[in-house]
Amino acid sequence: MSRQTSRLDAKKVNSELLTLTYGALVSQMLKEIENPEDVNKQLERIGYNMGVRLIEDFLARTTSTRCLEMRETADKIQQAFRLYLNMQPTVTSWSSSGDEFSLVWDQCPLSEWVEMPNNGLKYCTLIPGAIRGALQMVQLDVQCWFVQDQLKGDAVTELRVKYIKRLEDAVPAGED
Amino acid sequence: MSRQTSRLDAKKVNSELLTLTYGALVSQMLKEIENPEDVNKQLERIGYNMGVRLIEDFLARTTSTRCLEMRETADKIQQAFRLYLNMQPTVTSWSSSGDEFSLVWDQCPLSEWVEMPNNGLKYCTLIPGAIRGALQMVQLDVQCWFVQDQLKGDAVTELRVKYIKRLEDAVPAGED
Repeated sequence: MSRQTSRLDAKKVNSELLTLTYGALVSQMLKEIENPEDVNKQLERIGYNMGVRLIEDFLARTTSTRCLEMRETADKIQQAFRLYLNMQPTVTSWSSSGDEFSLVWDQCPLSEWVEMPNNGLKYCTLIPGAIRGALQMVQLDVQCWFVQDQLKGDAVTELRVKYIKRLEDAVPAGED
Repeated sequence: MSRQTSRLDAKKVNSELLTLTYGALVSQMLKEIENPEDVNKQLERIGYNMGVRLIEDFLARTTSTRCLEMRETADKIQQAFRLYLNMQPTVTSWSSSGDEFSLVWDQCPLSEWVEMPNNGLKYCTLIPGAIRGALQMVQLDVQCWFVQDQLKGDAVTELRVKYIKRLEDAVPAGED
């Protein structure tokens, strides 16, 4: 059977379509769920599930090996931003013990053109969710949270990532 | 030429992120709205609003002029698929009067990995919505509907586009 569709440079699509689709998702959730805190939680969960899916693709493409310390992990996360969102946040503000760092950016395709209601919504919560989900799959338990947010008037957006623990090598719960 | 290409590339993100984000949108809607027919309607409306946004970007990038007949319009739509979804559907099955044609594809980043519940949902209804919205903004009223759908077991997906009328040069009636 001849292919009806020729896929061009596979795997790349226009960022505005992602911006608008993500915007539609968030506004759909705000409409149905109302409480912005609950929307944040659900966005985090959706992001987590995406991270769980994307890590396989990431490992396959980058032929990454296991990170032995958080500086390597930070590099990989930065690489993932480049690969999936075509943006490169700065890795900065390491804690003295090296278990905590920030990712800082001032432009992100997810939040282009967005004007935020002043209601507690953390618009880009998909991202920390995805980081947490992806790292769980490589046995790294982290916490991620926003400490600055451009959409709330800060000069940049800053996402803090903190190492919690290394997980046992085990099949994740609920899978066989 | 090559300069334009690299400018366009700046707007590219990974298609899997779009696939997953769109999937999250559809499943969120199914969860909240339940009735698949109503989900189709809302997806069409979301697509319509995206089309209304994207047409400006499309015109700016492609320096397109007004299409004088439907064959030109079909070419532009095909170009838009390439630009936004990185896919190139086949334009085919013209009606004898030249007012109706099909776009046919067998792969689409929106529906990758999707398994459909057999419930009347038309998963990719964002697309005809976007076409309708974009064309309204250039004073073209069209109807778009799926006549085949791979997600329902057809060999390809076929979207029919039918010219209805040329609109008066006016601000479109408050569709939101």
